[in-house]
Amino acid sequence: MTGSIFAEDYGRLIVQGADQPGIVSRVSSVLAEHGANVVALDQSTSDPAGGRFFQRTVFHLPDLSGKLDELNQALEAKLVDDLGLTYRLVEAKRRKRVAIMVSKTDHCMLDLLWRQRRGELHMTIPMVISNHPDLGDDVRQFGIPFFHVPVEKDDKAAAEKEHLNLLKGNVDLVVLARYMQIISGEFLDEVGVPVINIHHSFLPAFMGAGPYQRAKERGVKLVGATAHYVTEDLDEGPIIEQDVIRVSHRESTRDLQRKGADVERLVLSRAVSWHCDDRVIRDGNTTVVF
Amino acid sequence: MTGSIFAEDYGRLIVQGADQPGIVSRVSSVLAEHGANVVALDQSTSDPAGGRFFQRTVFHLPDLSGKLDELNQALEAKLVDDLGLTYRLVEAKRRKRVAIMVSKTDHCMLDLLWRQRRGELHMTIPMVISNHPDLGDDVRQFGIPFFHVPVEKDDKAAAEKEHLNLLKGNVDLVVLARYMQIISGEFLDEVGVPVINIHHSFLPAFMGAGPYQRAKERGVKLVGATAHYVTEDLDEGPIIEQDVIRVSHRESTRDLQRKGADVERLVLSRAVSWHCDDRVIRDGNTTVVF
Amino acid sequence: MTGSIFAEDYGRLIVQGADQPGIVSRVSSVLAEHGANVVALDQSTSDPAGGRFFQRTVFHLPDLSGKLDELNQALEAKLVDDLGLTYRLVEAKRRKRVAIMVSKTDHCMLDLLWRQRRGELHMTIPMVISNHPDLGDDVRQFGIPFFHVPVEKDDKAAAEKEHLNLLKGNVDLVVLARYMQIISGEFLDEVGVPVINIHHSFLPAFMGAGPYQRAKERGVKLVGATAHYVTEDLDEGPIIEQDVIRVSHRESTRDLQRKGADVERLVLSRAVSWHCDDRVIRDGNTTVVF
Amino acid sequence: MTGSIFAEDYGRLIVQGADQPGIVSRVSSVLAEHGANVVALDQSTSDPAGGRFFQRTVFHLPDLSGKLDELNQALEAKLVDDLGLTYRLVEAKRRKRVAIMVSKTDHCMLDLLWRQRRGELHMTIPMVISNHPDLGDDVRQFGIPFFHVPVEKDDKAAAEKEHLNLLKGNVDLVVLARYMQIISGEFLDEVGVPVINIHHSFLPAFMGAGPYQRAKERGVKLVGATAHYVTEDLDEGPIIEQDVIRVSHRESTRDLQRKGADVERLVLSRAVSWHCDDRVIRDGNTTVVF
Repeated sequence: MTGSIFAEDYGRLIVQGADQPGIVSRVSSVLAEHGANVVALDQSTSDPAGGRFFQRTVFHLPDLSGKLDELNQALEAKLVDDLGLTYRLVEAKRRKRVAIMVSKTDHCMLDLLWRQRRGELHMTIPMVISNHPDLGDDVRQFGIPFFHVPVEKDDKAAAEKEHLNLLKGNVDLVVLARYMQIISGEFLDEVGVPVINIHHSFLPAFMGAGPYQRAKERGVKLVGATAHYVTEDLDEGPIIEQDVIRVSHRESTRDLQRKGADVERLVLSRAVSWHCDDRVIRDGNTTVVF
Repeated sequence: MTGSIFAEDYGRLIVQGADQPGIVSRVSSVLAEHGANVVALDQSTSDPAGGRFFQRTVFHLPDLSGKLDELNQALEAKLVDDLGLTYRLVEAKRRKRVAIMVSKTDHCMLDLLWRQRRGELHMTIPMVISNHPDLGDDVRQFGIPFFHVPVEKDDKAAAEKEHLNLLKGNVDLVVLARYMQIISGEFLDEVGVPVINIHHSFLPAFMGAGPYQRAKERGVKLVGATAHYVTEDLDEGPIIEQDVIRVSHRESTRDLQRKGADVERLVLSRAVSWHCDDRVIRDGNTTVVF
Repeated sequence: MTGSIFAEDYGRLIVQGADQPGIVSRVSSVLAEHGANVVALDQSTSDPAGGRFFQRTVFHLPDLSGKLDELNQALEAKLVDDLGLTYRLVEAKRRKRVAIMVSKTDHCMLDLLWRQRRGELHMTIPMVISNHPDLGDDVRQFGIPFFHVPVEKDDKAAAEKEHLNLLKGNVDLVVLARYMQIISGEFLDEVGVPVINIHHSFLPAFMGAGPYQRAKERGVKLVGATAHYVTEDLDEGPIIEQDVIRVSHRESTRDLQRKGADVERLVLSRAVSWHCDDRVIRDGNTTVVF
Repeated sequence: MTGSIFAEDYGRLIVQGADQPGIVSRVSSVLAEHGANVVALDQSTSDPAGGRFFQRTVFHLPDLSGKLDELNQALEAKLVDDLGLTYRLVEAKRRKRVAIMVSKTDHCMLDLLWRQRRGELHMTIPMVISNHPDLGDDVRQFGIPFFHVPVEKDDKAAAEKEHLNLLKGNVDLVVLARYMQIISGEFLDEVGVPVINIHHSFLPAFMGAGPYQRAKERGVKLVGATAHYVTEDLDEGPIIEQDVIRVSHRESTRDLQRKGADVERLVLSRAVSWHCDDRVIRDGNTTVVF
């Protein structure tokens, strides 16, 4: 057994569903029967009476790849058929393939590319897609393909079709790293993988245009950012991570935007990292982050 | 000259208005001509071209009380008449008289009473007013009068009239420390002193009923609080202070409320303290906090 | 099954020791065999290869009190004898009995008494002990016994003997809520329960006398607090919780102390709350906080 | 008058020294006599009785460059000769020239280069110096010269001599962005410009080797970073900025280092930005940050 839980023979099992007595024990015994040793386990229940059950288990199992089929069969029988739960079984060594979509603003994208290069993120980045050509050089310096897909105002569908051609089958996650175009419900249905977005956040919220200017006019003392899964309700999907930074009257609207950018890149990179490590369990419009 | 800027012979001068060349110099020379020594000075301009000007000056002037009249005359002439500015001149030794209004929840009120007893707040608390009798014993243990003014659903005006009888002329500030009744525009006009409120805050905002429950359902990672001046637009007045605290899926809606309460009392006590030290300058719907 | 994990028939099982394959499964099956349903489970290993194992399990078991003996026998056999682990089995309904020791400064003590009164802490407070009489009235207003035990400079042993008379057998935890006397190793041995302390913290540390003054002289931008278990090495025991607050050159040494006090009370009350819920597992000089 | 306080004809005046009555007024009248309009003013006194005085004034003065000499003469006469103060007069349009020194770790350096390219920092970066060749390509992609100056263990003086050849007369500030060599007192004397360093910080401090490992062993809950001016006492110079980030037992020593790196780059870039805007006034071993 090596020291890294991202190495060969480490697996992750995510289980969720309606809570009922005995789930933890059932999961443990399935794993034990197949020779797996639990390395880390997080479990949570939304309510001790009639709530939702969530469990993330990291385990070590020699020759995991060769045993995936039988393990899946056992989990299917004992968790899905018997208890009506759902599960995901993941080999830790398989890095998620993450596409980044971006417009002109570089801070979130650069932070992801740079963390990836220094080995902080357990993922690959097969491509960056942008509706502008500006960031192409920056991306290619990291050895990553950059695809420029212009979005015409009166034919967004054409661009989304090209996006789908590039993405489908090639990626496990799409990250909108300050991609300033609206994503259609059709795209979300078609792409078939989760989409994570980052957007600025305030207390209270300033909906609509010019939020930093309006936050400034109200004298807000904190600016923040929220990373969330994208759903058809724009900016309303389940929250993965949030953070804020303190501001004051000394700072201009532009300063507020810059501080907001500092929070955005931190929050987005945490959210992407946790997603790639299967730490985020989505449940309706909320999340459990282990 | 003693070491405390809250002692005899210390004054505070707040100046605000349309920015124009020479204001700082004008203020300095008026103070210098009267023998005042500037101890601390904060100045800010909302925009170097055509913005709003704000200045808070703390000064020491022997026999300040005796010289208030002549100082006011000079300021009136040189700042108001000549430059069209407004100003406030305050003796630091005069503690603001602060009424607390509260319903049943004690955390914000107790925090103010504790800090007051400990000498942290430069103010007096001549009364606590509540629409419920529950907190009377707690208040009176601090030697502070407690007035129970029930609010009848169909005659709120009667209660507000009694509030005004208690407050008018007796206080310099009203603090709503979790007072769960709506304050009318008439009350705000009549009472003639600023009113500070504290309320929970989220990113994004959850307007309306049950915000903690709805924040929980969306998976928020931060709960916060905002202290603001009360205007006729409920919860929309200029912000004095805000802060947040981190939460997770492990916490129930009730836990979120408790963490929110911890933030509320800190944020409110900071806002009240800064107001009492004349650190908060209100300008339309925003604030400058020096 | 009720909705509260602090009610009748809820238990907590803390297991720790050298990591080895199969512990989670073993714990699960012991609990399942006795009819217990796992409600929440946190597990951690300090290192996947040859590390230390920690697990906290909350479970529901009808007639828990009546089944404690047989459950203990099973755990003794299957965890201690077979696997060389240690465990603690706790009924959630049994509130820990917590003595507070304090000198003259009230902020940490008041925060604990007040949270206890409003039902935030799952504990009882059978007594407050102080080397000064000053806080007696405050304590007794909460209906809690206050014992004044003066500490003579040349006979500290006499005071500690009286402390032990008051504490031994009567409490499950001692909290030093700004108790400004050094605790001897003999006292720690004799009292037989954990002792939690709170102390100010800076980056970097300012050891010795006058830390706030020295922090001020170095221009620190953050002041903080650390809650830790007390060991014979003063202020060097395992850390339970820490936090900081931002300060600036505008604040005097006294302001720094006040802001530090705000952090101290929050950090200490979190640490005490987590300890009482058996969320803190001590392992040598470190802690795991679930 | 344009809208940016970094444009032509904007100046900054920093005044400091022993407090005495009338300094603010004196500074204001000198500026007013020369036709300058105060745009922003921060003033602070370490103690109202016998303390140290600090003032930063931003002003607008048409044809500032042409009037520098006469303004300097007036300030010399009225502040230095009459009142024994010291001052610095700076044209805002003159960007400070900042050299970065770095070893192999890229996070602090890249953050500065990114922010510089994005226009967030009012400075130029004439060179990056490293004792390793590794980061050369990264630096040159930004169009910035990279000089590799190896440091031989037994002849550090030779390297420092080469450093001085590169730096002297060419830069206004040296930033040690994770430069892992000790800087000699001779170098500090010779280089003649301030040197800013960033280092990790903990509560409490863990001096010496392996601080993250030791922090982990003690169970710390926060890791942080401190940016400070370098003095002969290594890591003991006046603090400019600090911040922390929360960690838990779930994180390995390596995770702690990564989170520490996130704080380091934020804290260093804030410190450098404030220094370049003349917001940091150094006074003995402390700082005032306006």
